Amino acid sequence: MATWCRVETNGRPAYGLVQGEMVTIMDGSPFERYTPTGTRLSLSDARLLVPVVPTNFYAVGLNYRAHIEWAAARHGIPAKVPAQADVGYRSPNALIAGGEAIVLPKDSPGPVEYEGELVAVIGRRARHLSEAEALGCVLGYTLGNDVSERAWQKTDRTLWRAQNSHTFKPMGPFIVTDLDPRQQRIAVRLNGRVVSEYDTAAMIFDAAHYIARMSRYLTLYPGDVIWFGCDGPTEPPLSAGDTVEVVNDAIGVLRNPVVREA
Amino acid sequence: MATWCRVETNGRPAYGLVQGEMVTIMDGSPFERYTPTGTRLSLSDARLLVPVVPTNFYAVGLNYRAHIEWAAARHGIPAKVPAQADVGYRSPNALIAGGEAIVLPKDSPGPVEYEGELVAVIGRRARHLSEAEALGCVLGYTLGNDVSERAWQKTDRTLWRAQNSHTFKPMGPFIVTDLDPRQQRIAVRLNGRVVSEYDTAAMIFDAAHYIARMSRYLTLYPGDVIWFGCDGPTEPPLSAGDTVEVVNDAIGVLRNPVVREA
Repeated sequence: MATWCRVETNGRPAYGLVQGEMVTIMDGSPFERYTPTGTRLSLSDARLLVPVVPTNFYAVGLNYRAHIEWAAARHGIPAKVPAQADVGYRSPNALIAGGEAIVLPKDSPGPVEYEGELVAVIGRRARHLSEAEALGCVLGYTLGNDVSERAWQKTDRTLWRAQNSHTFKPMGPFIVTDLDPRQQRIAVRLNGRVVSEYDTAAMIFDAAHYIARMSRYLTLYPGDVIWFGCDGPTEPPLSAGDTVEVVNDAIGVLRNPVVREA
Repeated sequence: MATWCRVETNGRPAYGLVQGEMVTIMDGSPFERYTPTGTRLSLSDARLLVPVVPTNFYAVGLNYRAHIEWAAARHGIPAKVPAQADVGYRSPNALIAGGEAIVLPKDSPGPVEYEGELVAVIGRRARHLSEAEALGCVLGYTLGNDVSERAWQKTDRTLWRAQNSHTFKPMGPFIVTDLDPRQQRIAVRLNGRVVSEYDTAAMIFDAAHYIARMSRYLTLYPGDVIWFGCDGPTEPPLSAGDTVEVVNDAIGVLRNPVVREA
């Protein structure tokens, strides 16, 4: 198991391997070759960046039954359980790292809600994979917070404002290799209190099925990410002054403060 | 008016300025600084690449009345004229350059149709632009062919297969600066015959309105692209052996052969 981070060092982004509290800065990246530089940083001194800026940003909106049923009852969002593994999109414009603020848009009627999600980071170019082969193209896993403006979501055909407004896609903190994506517990804490907790075992279509099916119709590229959706309710909504954390034992804590646009 | 291309030279991508039949290869890119290298190529010898690989790939699905009405009548695709300028997404995985083949997926029931579109290429980071300022962040314009699998489109909530299968997004050939996006005629030729022709003046929401509205909620980045949709019918569908061209007087011809997946 390796833990990759992306940090700013000497004003530029660089990949690093995390060992305990220390980061060894690399030349290159986990997506190609890499060699250690002489530089080591303390994790507490490092400015963590989004662990990858994807070329293709895929997201599975509806992948857990309890979340689909809750969203239908609570927000009037269609309750249809997907009949097949269809992936959607988010936009890299909305990505922020841990520590950066989620900004509630000035004119957002709300509620704005978190969704804590497991994220696969593709490690190598892949096409036409079987389900048995599929997870072999994954470098590792990180966490995402799929922030959504539920009022806008009702009339927003493309989800562009509802789910991709500035700062609405926190991702991080690390990319951790050699995890089983079917065996992860994901929690969300709001101001220190656990408000959501579920097991990825409950995915309607699992990561291997999605990756295999996607690779039938498209090429997966190193650095592409796939967000796998969340289970259960995602309340209470976010308010200015909150701190929201997505938590997984192996990957760590993706922590973001919440502010209101000035 | 400047005409930018992106070509492969010495096995690597490089930007070049086109003058007549010659390309002057640049160090750098039109999105930052650039200086001429000593290298000049004949355009006919150059291997043209997609003119930019966008970080954010925006697309306006429904932006012309005659196309919306035709798609509703012909394909049962919802006929709602959008009430506001909501942008959607396509995925860079599907981009191909002029000259590369559009591949009809083996299991596609069809019809697979072209859509010839004007594409804005963002030149500088932009946020909170007024409509008067909006076009100032555009480097230039290119052409896109928004290939769509209409059978899949009917049940494909996210359009991932219907519009983003491998090779479904030809873009090019050049990025041309100083065009008026409201005053362009776009044509599509199928095997040499004009099958679609319209004026961008008929956009429901114009480029400046889209860019200003988008910049209210997100940051536009250099190299982002916005595809603006097409007008009118898009028939007959594509068949293996066809050549499809998107044509504009100023930007040139985006030409792609069509093959069936083996």
